[in-house]
Amino acid sequence: MSQANPLLVPELREMLDTNDVENIKLFCEAEHPAIIADFLSALEPVEIFEILKHTNLQLQAKIISHLTEDTQVAVVEIMGKLEIAKLLGEMAHDDRADIFKQLSKKLQNLILPALAQAEREDIRRLASYEEGTAGAVMTSDYATLALHLTTSEAVEVLRQVAPDKETIYYTYILDDNRKLLGMVSLKDIIVATKDTPLSEIIETDIAYAMVSDHQEDVAHKMRKYDIIALPVLNEDESMVGIITFDDIEDVIVEEATIDFHSLGAISQPTDGELSGIDMRDTSILLMVRKRLPWLLILVFVNIISGAGIAHFESTIQAVVALVFFLPLLIDSGGNAGSQSSTLMVRALATGQAKMSDWLYLLTKEVLVASILGLGMGLAASVLGFWRGGPEIALIVSLTMACIVVFGSLVGMSLPFLLNKLKLDPATASAPLITSLADIGGILIYFNIATYFLKDKIG
Amino acid sequence: MSQANPLLVPELREMLDTNDVENIKLFCEAEHPAIIADFLSALEPVEIFEILKHTNLQLQAKIISHLTEDTQVAVVEIMGKLEIAKLLGEMAHDDRADIFKQLSKKLQNLILPALAQAEREDIRRLASYEEGTAGAVMTSDYATLALHLTTSEAVEVLRQVAPDKETIYYTYILDDNRKLLGMVSLKDIIVATKDTPLSEIIETDIAYAMVSDHQEDVAHKMRKYDIIALPVLNEDESMVGIITFDDIEDVIVEEATIDFHSLGAISQPTDGELSGIDMRDTSILLMVRKRLPWLLILVFVNIISGAGIAHFESTIQAVVALVFFLPLLIDSGGNAGSQSSTLMVRALATGQAKMSDWLYLLTKEVLVASILGLGMGLAASVLGFWRGGPEIALIVSLTMACIVVFGSLVGMSLPFLLNKLKLDPATASAPLITSLADIGGILIYFNIATYFLKDKIG
Repeated sequence: MSQANPLLVPELREMLDTNDVENIKLFCEAEHPAIIADFLSALEPVEIFEILKHTNLQLQAKIISHLTEDTQVAVVEIMGKLEIAKLLGEMAHDDRADIFKQLSKKLQNLILPALAQAEREDIRRLASYEEGTAGAVMTSDYATLALHLTTSEAVEVLRQVAPDKETIYYTYILDDNRKLLGMVSLKDIIVATKDTPLSEIIETDIAYAMVSDHQEDVAHKMRKYDIIALPVLNEDESMVGIITFDDIEDVIVEEATIDFHSLGAISQPTDGELSGIDMRDTSILLMVRKRLPWLLILVFVNIISGAGIAHFESTIQAVVALVFFLPLLIDSGGNAGSQSSTLMVRALATGQAKMSDWLYLLTKEVLVASILGLGMGLAASVLGFWRGGPEIALIVSLTMACIVVFGSLVGMSLPFLLNKLKLDPATASAPLITSLADIGGILIYFNIATYFLKDKIG
Repeated sequence: MSQANPLLVPELREMLDTNDVENIKLFCEAEHPAIIADFLSALEPVEIFEILKHTNLQLQAKIISHLTEDTQVAVVEIMGKLEIAKLLGEMAHDDRADIFKQLSKKLQNLILPALAQAEREDIRRLASYEEGTAGAVMTSDYATLALHLTTSEAVEVLRQVAPDKETIYYTYILDDNRKLLGMVSLKDIIVATKDTPLSEIIETDIAYAMVSDHQEDVAHKMRKYDIIALPVLNEDESMVGIITFDDIEDVIVEEATIDFHSLGAISQPTDGELSGIDMRDTSILLMVRKRLPWLLILVFVNIISGAGIAHFESTIQAVVALVFFLPLLIDSGGNAGSQSSTLMVRALATGQAKMSDWLYLLTKEVLVASILGLGMGLAASVLGFWRGGPEIALIVSLTMACIVVFGSLVGMSLPFLLNKLKLDPATASAPLITSLADIGGILIYFNIATYFLKDKIG
C-alpha cells in the first residue's frame, strides 16, 4: 500500500554511494515502517535491497510488508534463497504467503527446502486458497488458549506468544480436533477477576467464516458485529486462520474499486489475478486488455441503435431537425439509467438492498422516474418549442418523459437481473445502460415522431 | 446498519398482543444485538419500543445502536424525556451524539436538562462537529492512563474503566493540559514484565488526526498504519476523542458510496445531511432532488451537441447514412472516457494517484488510448465498409480512432482538473464525460465527413 515518496531519494542514494551504513540503519528506524516503505518505493528494487540489508530482520520484514506487491517480489527476487527463507520466517503469515505465491515457480521450489517444515506447510496451505475467498485473506498466526486455563494463566500464555501473533486481543479456544469451541477477548480476561476459569468467560456463540466464503461477505459480517478478528474454518470445520480488521479494510477498498471499474466498463480481474488494475502500476498492454473488450461489445450493441436510425431514414430525411434533439433525448435516458443502475449496484454491494426488496424498489423507482420524466419533459418542451415549434415541442417532451422512465427502469432492473443470474450486478455499467437506453430511446423517439409527423413524411 | 428481517414479525407481534414479557426478554437476549436489530427493523417504531422496554437498559442501548439512524430517531421520539436521558447514558458516546443531533430542536431542549452535566457537555460537543470531519466520527469514551503508573497498576485501572470505554486495547497518556504524550497498547502492557513503568513502554511518535480533518484522510491514515484507534486533537492540540476501526470501516464504505453516486451523476450530500442517499430509505422527493439537477445540467450540455449537429445539417442531408454511425461513434468516445474517468477518480480517492503523477499518467493514457483507438478504428472500418463502402469506412475508422483518444483524455484530465480546483473529482461522472465526449465526437465526425465528402455536399 506504499506510495512512492521521492523526497529522500538524493540522500538515500548518497548514503548508498558512500556506503554510510550507520545512517542507513538510523534511517530505517527513524519512522514507522509504513513511512520508510513510502520513501524506499521511490528507489529501484536493487537499491531497496541494498538499504534493507543493513537493518535487522524483523524491521526488514515489517518494511517489506508495506511495499506494493510488485516491489516486494522485485526486492525478494534479488535475495539469495537462504536470505528469503529467513525473511519469510519473520513475516506475518498472510503477508509471507502473499509474497510467496507471486514468486516464479522456479524460485518457489528453491526456497521451500530452505524453510522449516511447519513454515513450509503453512505457506503452501495459505497460498493455495483462491483469490477473493476468506482463505486467501486470512492469516494463520492467531493465538489460542486451552479451556482449562484461568485468566491469570491466560495472560501469562499471551505474554509469551504475543510477539509471534497477529493479535492477542481475540484468542480462540479449540478442542483436540481443532474444532472451535469459542473465543475470549483480552478485554474479558482483564475485566474478569484473577483466576477466573476461561470456561466461565468463553463466548461460544460467535461469528465465523468458511475458507471458501467470498471476501465481500466476510467484510459484511465483520462490519455487522464490529469485531477485530473473525475465525475461519475449513471444510472439516477445523479452525485454520483469522481475518483481522486491517485486512478487511483492504478488502472493502478493493471490492469497491473492482465495482467502480466494472461500472466504468472495465473488465473485472480474472482467475489468478490478485486484484483489480491499478492506474499507475498496471502495464499498458494489460490496461488495453481490460478496456478494449467492453468497448468492442458496446460497439455491437450500438450497431442496433444505428440500425434503428436507418429504419427511420425517411422520417429523418423529411424532418432533419429531429436529429438536433437526438443526442439530447437518448443521452437523457442513458443518464437517468446510469443513476438508477449506480444506486442499485451500490445498494446490492453494501447489502442495503436485497433480492426480496425487488417489488418495493421497483414501485418506488417507477414513482421517482415518473416525476423525473415529467420534469425533463417540461424542460424538453421549452427547447422543442424554441427550436421547432409546437408540434416538435409535443414530440420532444413526450419522448423525453418516456425515455427517462424507460432508462430508469432498465438501469434499475438490469443489476437485479444480473444478481439473480449469479452474475456481478456491477456489469450493468453506465456505458452498457447508456447503450441499451439509446436503443430504446431511438425506437421511442422515431415512433412518436413518425406518428405525429405522418403527413410530412407522406 | 440493520437490514429489516421480516422472519419473526408474526411471532413478535403475537408476543406483543399477548403481552408475553418473558419471551420478549428471552428474544432480546437470544442473539447478538446486531441480529436482534435486524429482526426488530421489520416492525413499526412503536412496536420496537414496546419490545425493547422489557429488556435492560444496557441491552436496549446496544440493540438501538444497531438500528438505522431513521429508526433510532423514530423509536427514541416515542420515549419520555427521562427514559431518553437514561438510554443515552448507556450508549457509546459517538452513537448517542449521532442520535441526539437527529432529534428535533424541541426534543433536544427537553432532554438536555435531564442529563448529567458531563453527559450534556459531551453530547453538545460531539454533536457540534461538521459531518464528514474526524470530529463527527470520533467518540469521547476512550481510556487514558497516567504516565507514572506501572504495567500492573495500568491493568488494574483498565479493569475498572473497561465497561465504559469504547476500547481498552489502545490507551492514551495525557499531560495536565490534556496534551497527548503518547499511547500504550494493551499488548505492550501484557508483554512487558510486571511493574514496568509505563514511561518505558510509551510510544510517543504516534499518528493522530485533528477534529477538522476530513474523514477520508483519517481512513487513509488508519489503513496505512493498521491501527485499531486513532487519537483526535482539537485546535488547542488537546486530545478530545478517538476514532476506532469499526467507525472507519463505515467511513470507507460511506465515502465509496458517495463517490459511486457522484460518478452516476447523483448530487452529493449537502451540508447538514448525514450521508449519501439510500436506495431503500430515502424519500421519493429527496431522490428526485438528488437526481433531477444533474439530468437538467446535462440537457444543457447536450444542447451544444444538438447545435453541432444543426451546424452540419447540409452534410447530413447529403449523406443520411452518416446518422447511422452517429450513436456508435459518439458513444464509443463516451465509453472510453467513462473508463478513464472511473480509473482516475478511484485512483485519486484511494490515494493511489497523486497530483504529482499527472504527467506520467497522461503519457501512459495517451499510449493506452492510442492502442484502443487503433483497435476501435479497425472495428469501425469493417462496419463502415459493410454499410457504406470504402469512403465511409475511411471516415468512420478515422473518426473512431480520434474520438476514442479524445474521450480518454477528457475522461482522465477532468478529474485531475477538478481535484486541482479543490472540487470533488467524482463530479466527472460518466454521464458528464459522455456528454462532453458527444460534443467533441460530433465536431470530429462531421468535420472529417465534410472534408472527405465535399464533392457530394456541393
